[in-house]
Amino acid sequence: MSLFENPIIKKINEKYSVIWALNHALAVMGWDSETYMPKRGVEERAKARATLSVLRRKLILDPELVSLVERAKKEENLNDYEKGVVRVLDREISINRKLPEKLVYELSKTSQEAISVWVEAKRTDDFKKFEPYLERLVSLSREVAEKLGYEKHPYNALLDLYEEGLTVDDMDFVFNNMIPRLKKMLDKILSENLFPSKHPLEDIKYEREALEKVDKEILDLLEYPWDRARIDVSEHPFTIGIAVNDVRITTRFEGIDFKRNIYAVIHEFGHATYELQIDPRLEGTPIGEAVSSGIHESQSRFWENIIGRSKEFVALVKPIFDKHLGFTKSYSEEEIFKYVNTVRPSLIRVDADEVTYNFHIYLRYEIEKKLIAEELSVKEVPEVWNDMMDKLLGVRPKSYREGVLQDIHWSMGSFGYFPTYTLGNVVSAQVKDVLEKKFKTSLGTLVSERRFNDIKEALKELIHKWGSTYSPKKLLERALGETYNPEHFLNYIEEKYIKKV
Amino acid sequence: MSLFENPIIKKINEKYSVIWALNHALAVMGWDSETYMPKRGVEERAKARATLSVLRRKLILDPELVSLVERAKKEENLNDYEKGVVRVLDREISINRKLPEKLVYELSKTSQEAISVWVEAKRTDDFKKFEPYLERLVSLSREVAEKLGYEKHPYNALLDLYEEGLTVDDMDFVFNNMIPRLKKMLDKILSENLFPSKHPLEDIKYEREALEKVDKEILDLLEYPWDRARIDVSEHPFTIGIAVNDVRITTRFEGIDFKRNIYAVIHEFGHATYELQIDPRLEGTPIGEAVSSGIHESQSRFWENIIGRSKEFVALVKPIFDKHLGFTKSYSEEEIFKYVNTVRPSLIRVDADEVTYNFHIYLRYEIEKKLIAEELSVKEVPEVWNDMMDKLLGVRPKSYREGVLQDIHWSMGSFGYFPTYTLGNVVSAQVKDVLEKKFKTSLGTLVSERRFNDIKEALKELIHKWGSTYSPKKLLERALGETYNPEHFLNYIEEKYIKKV
Repeated sequence: MSLFENPIIKKINEKYSVIWALNHALAVMGWDSETYMPKRGVEERAKARATLSVLRRKLILDPELVSLVERAKKEENLNDYEKGVVRVLDREISINRKLPEKLVYELSKTSQEAISVWVEAKRTDDFKKFEPYLERLVSLSREVAEKLGYEKHPYNALLDLYEEGLTVDDMDFVFNNMIPRLKKMLDKILSENLFPSKHPLEDIKYEREALEKVDKEILDLLEYPWDRARIDVSEHPFTIGIAVNDVRITTRFEGIDFKRNIYAVIHEFGHATYELQIDPRLEGTPIGEAVSSGIHESQSRFWENIIGRSKEFVALVKPIFDKHLGFTKSYSEEEIFKYVNTVRPSLIRVDADEVTYNFHIYLRYEIEKKLIAEELSVKEVPEVWNDMMDKLLGVRPKSYREGVLQDIHWSMGSFGYFPTYTLGNVVSAQVKDVLEKKFKTSLGTLVSERRFNDIKEALKELIHKWGSTYSPKKLLERALGETYNPEHFLNYIEEKYIKKV
Repeated sequence: MSLFENPIIKKINEKYSVIWALNHALAVMGWDSETYMPKRGVEERAKARATLSVLRRKLILDPELVSLVERAKKEENLNDYEKGVVRVLDREISINRKLPEKLVYELSKTSQEAISVWVEAKRTDDFKKFEPYLERLVSLSREVAEKLGYEKHPYNALLDLYEEGLTVDDMDFVFNNMIPRLKKMLDKILSENLFPSKHPLEDIKYEREALEKVDKEILDLLEYPWDRARIDVSEHPFTIGIAVNDVRITTRFEGIDFKRNIYAVIHEFGHATYELQIDPRLEGTPIGEAVSSGIHESQSRFWENIIGRSKEFVALVKPIFDKHLGFTKSYSEEEIFKYVNTVRPSLIRVDADEVTYNFHIYLRYEIEKKLIAEELSVKEVPEVWNDMMDKLLGVRPKSYREGVLQDIHWSMGSFGYFPTYTLGNVVSAQVKDVLEKKFKTSLGTLVSERRFNDIKEALKELIHKWGSTYSPKKLLERALGETYNPEHFLNYIEEKYIKKV
């Protein structure tokens, strides 16, 4: 039975099928570029993708589609799915219309250059080399904010691009409540040595083939549907939903400290599960995709941290480690649990643990917010960065590479993206509390009983199946009874890292 | 320096870039469907590909593009590349315009159903099951011929789809000259036992990993450019040119009779080399693709047979076999040469050797020609097939599976494709003779000296670099001084299989 009854909406969906097919093609091309494409294919691939993106924009702004959406906006008695179609397309049309093609092109071109410059600047630890590009990207992003329009703060326009409806007020509320309490907890964990800050297993090398088998068995344990999904290798792990029955994750093998690989895989599994559980009846329509970066990240973090780094999950996977890696045999479950949950203030975001991770995001959020509001200049950023690291985590980068140059995001012009990482952490703990209430037992118990399909089913009903039917905030209100509330995350950290020890 | 100066042609190429990008996307999707796509992704992938094909057709028939091409047709002083752009697009526009969307859809839908029915009919050896589909496909193909228009023979319209300008007269000339002489040679080879009809190595099993290494080393020997090309595994081997710096071949491992895999790889290498050597300045334009199926096949056959099955090549690869397969060590070079050149009349086209292969094509050609001209009915086909096999090769199928149901082509509605296989064989020998004249030495000598890059360079200058600049016949006239002439192929067979023995 179709979810769509209104004749205008049906026409919209029909017209949208070409855009859907282009999205599908762009997704396959994106996946291929990061996995199997021959090295020298990069130039033509970039050109083909750019050309199809322009075509996609044209189809979104097609006068017939626009007028159908305008008509649909005036329709009464639309059901929630139909309203979702209107909301999503109206938003896409409006964003594409407000941003001049020239600005989009300029941003994409500058960022393509900036990425190579950033790679080189990071390699040679030379911020000055990257500085003019960062200047330009900040200025272009400000222009984007101006074109899009905003209330209160220009950064709001950029936040909204990744997380529909997210504002500086939301993020300030999250961080103002989170950072002081988290800082106190971190100090306690460190001063009382509740969790190790370093573990000998971190220095142990592994065979790639052995870890591949571990990954495979963990995905089997989680009932990853191999007839609808795959895993490949890429430079940076990612998940891509090509279609509801074609979802792919990637991982990488660094050869040392195997938890880095394992938890990246479980993280991507979380993303993939979201994509795999969107209602197939939404496929091909404007609401057939995951709703936002923050909600997506809540799903990956939920599986990576709340499930994956739990004592109960460690107990399940320890035999898999022992079977294929061998060197874990001489460590107890408790030791492996400690190994995957070391807590240490570090300079690098991607190496951060659950307790320190959000400090890294807070720092970037504050800097981005000020850059976009012109309250901070690009050349001041390294010093501000270092001072803030010092203040938040008590460590100070000795190089740009360990500081301002560590992440790729800014070279991609992705201002407004970082905060969604913290939203992911925040929401993942809210989800945990809702699930435990629903199941009337702890997630740990469900994990021990290997009830992963029950957990997936619950996530599907709460969040996944809706696709983009509701805006992120509306979805959270329906699913969790509230929007972004850091209280749950703080309680989760306190429980796991302080109370239970 | 651009090859295009005329302002109208430049505008055409600019507009064409969107079609090029769609072709690029469709190629990636096609490759992915056959290699890595999760099983259940098939339905949405088919939908996305079909939708983009319709979009592509729309862009080809875009009135602006059509009127530019009309204007360009009246331009004087176009250079050869520019003339090529006009010829190729004019042809594409004309084909797309003449074929109603409904007919294209009907053909594609019927063929999709027919493929599954054919699989099942072949499995159960039940021609009756497939018959109504074959009826329908023949009738739709006749309709295609009528819509496209033709001179003399309706089959000409279909031949032209795969090999621009090819006619029944051309093919009759080829076969009338080829078949009697080839039949005499075959009889002599068989009656005098000049080559073995069966070799013990055909029954030896191999380890897939070992043969993968052999393939890799053979491709290294042939200097396959790994930064621009790859090899993967698929059900049926194929080559796809995604871009001039992104060309991919596939192979399969059957576990027994390793020459089947080896020569499939070298065959695809020949296709890939063509794609890799098209002038990069043609990329993105309507003439940036290989010109026809027959010319393409001439390149794969040249490498597979004329190079690959030569004594000199066998001498080069024997150490690679010995190193990885081991079981070849107890056979001499001469024995391996005999193994890869067994000659035996068989029922199955894809198992046929150089000497018997064209009989299989001749049979299909005669049947197709008569079906399209309504001189033969579908229900008569199995008997006609069997009688002809008997007459040509002295073997008679005992099942439909070994006869009329063996190939997928008809279920795909591809009437007119088979003859390009024979053209490939014919032209490959013409190319051999031209190269030997040019190098003033035998190809065998060049192979012994591992001068594969010199051979590639010569093929590039003769054929590859031109893309679709010239029509197939024009290209051959320029490169070889004549069009399709079976004399060279017959001499090659006589030389190799009779005179030298």
